[in-house]
Amino acid sequence: MDEFALIRRFFAAPAQGRGDVALGIGDDAALLKVPAGQELAVSTDSLVAGVHFPPDLPADAVGHRALACNLSDLAAMGATPAWVLMALTLPEADEAWLEGFSRGFFSLAKQHGVALVGGNVARGPLNITLTVQGLVPAGTALTRAGASVGDLIYVTGNPGDAAAGLALLQKGKADLQHPCVRRFAYPEPRIAAGQALRGIASAAIDVSDGLFADLGHLLEARGFGAKLALSRLPVSRELLGLHPEEQAWALALTGGDDYELCFTVRADRAAAAESTLQAAGCAVTCIGAIESEPGIHCQDRKGQLRSYPRPGHRHF
Amino acid sequence: MDEFALIRRFFAAPAQGRGDVALGIGDDAALLKVPAGQELAVSTDSLVAGVHFPPDLPADAVGHRALACNLSDLAAMGATPAWVLMALTLPEADEAWLEGFSRGFFSLAKQHGVALVGGNVARGPLNITLTVQGLVPAGTALTRAGASVGDLIYVTGNPGDAAAGLALLQKGKADLQHPCVRRFAYPEPRIAAGQALRGIASAAIDVSDGLFADLGHLLEARGFGAKLALSRLPVSRELLGLHPEEQAWALALTGGDDYELCFTVRADRAAAAESTLQAAGCAVTCIGAIESEPGIHCQDRKGQLRSYPRPGHRHF
Repeated sequence: MDEFALIRRFFAAPAQGRGDVALGIGDDAALLKVPAGQELAVSTDSLVAGVHFPPDLPADAVGHRALACNLSDLAAMGATPAWVLMALTLPEADEAWLEGFSRGFFSLAKQHGVALVGGNVARGPLNITLTVQGLVPAGTALTRAGASVGDLIYVTGNPGDAAAGLALLQKGKADLQHPCVRRFAYPEPRIAAGQALRGIASAAIDVSDGLFADLGHLLEARGFGAKLALSRLPVSRELLGLHPEEQAWALALTGGDDYELCFTVRADRAAAAESTLQAAGCAVTCIGAIESEPGIHCQDRKGQLRSYPRPGHRHF
Repeated sequence: MDEFALIRRFFAAPAQGRGDVALGIGDDAALLKVPAGQELAVSTDSLVAGVHFPPDLPADAVGHRALACNLSDLAAMGATPAWVLMALTLPEADEAWLEGFSRGFFSLAKQHGVALVGGNVARGPLNITLTVQGLVPAGTALTRAGASVGDLIYVTGNPGDAAAGLALLQKGKADLQHPCVRRFAYPEPRIAAGQALRGIASAAIDVSDGLFADLGHLLEARGFGAKLALSRLPVSRELLGLHPEEQAWALALTGGDDYELCFTVRADRAAAAESTLQAAGCAVTCIGAIESEPGIHCQDRKGQLRSYPRPGHRHF
């Protein structure tokens, strides 16, 4: 199978009914229409086999996960996903793998109305690099830089689940139906939550490297610190079924791959944030507050400070 | 060196003075402003070490070439480059390599006023995937699909040089000053030529897989064929210094990596095409014409048909 036959067979999906795709797959570039008053939000992210996912992860999970990680960046900006480009490097044209991969990818793309508008297929070690593009009303995007001292810190969903799921996969105990494993394999980007937070959150970031690391980026943007209440961390029943509470806290703080949102809200907007996310069907928990003193300070139930190693900086 | 230090050190360049970058590197996504009346042209392309370039190619050439290949797709649409995202997968943080790579990349980016607005660095086998974004007045982009029977077929520059240069590199005779080697290592995307051809060319494509293969894509878009005059192929003196004429023709037709433009023009616009490209400082040659009969038919000086294997379909 040559490159072009492969693209036609697995990736020539319709443009999800988007009228803003003037020209889609098949030319030197796609031509897209950005409506007046909207800014374009753009992000790129790669998944490398054996680095970002176990090589035996089911192909449809790889397709889903590749798109989910990228869409999560748009969610953190409050943007609405529109278009995606895919650069796929493959060691071989394994038709069963490609069928599963494209099924997982397009299933999530359809759910969010994202059109695949271009891409590239090359031979080489498995690498999936997507570039997602979304739209956000000019001047309303959420950024990492808007937090102020005293703002409350929230996180969506149940961080830590995905890290626990990945650990199960790595041990070979891969029950793909386990909720934690599903959270690793099929993360759900918080698109609706991000959009709902426009005009309410003061800053936002998605949790890809772990809450500690990503909250750290948000704090660094202003030179602030944070106080977190460990007992408020929304550790899931499923995570507590796998690990005792103290370990569950550590996973919730330092485990990556959840693709939840971490955001800050001025105290007088807290009720608005909670009710808008409830309406969007998104669980959310206040876990602490922004302080002027740099660093992340975690208090246990007795008010004692705990320290955690700060991971998420991937060393070369 | 961690991922973020690496980005700060090698990739945190200013936005080339572009006022249309509302938010650049460092958040979950970049925020970009597309002016009213413009369409967004978007394309992605990967370079894999050992597949798309010899592993010992100088790092600055890898950086230049990665961007040039991508910009060439915008050139073929007649678009003006604006922004680029970089997904870099690296086996290790080799500082000397990164310094050369980023120098080659930013030198070409500056030349074309392209701002690096986002990216990702991951660990893994060397893979450089760029996504370029350009602007083109709505409805004026060049596509592959506009050719008509009788249109003249043109190519810019001297196709075949890069393939001859790559062959020298692969033999280990790598005089990087040889014009053919430079054409492989430092291709110049035909941005000005593409822009000049808006409203004049009926169809265009860039020559990445070889003239035969890429002209073939342009023909397939309409189900047409072409007649080419081999003696008109603009083989360079340098190429003829390396190969006899017959081999030079074959390289000009089937060698890839030149990143020239192949385009078609209605006969009554030929003079306009030639003069506008001359004004843009771009050499251009008429090599044949569009026919209704499918296939590419090449005639030698005696009028005899020659057949060439059609490469460029990369098999898996």
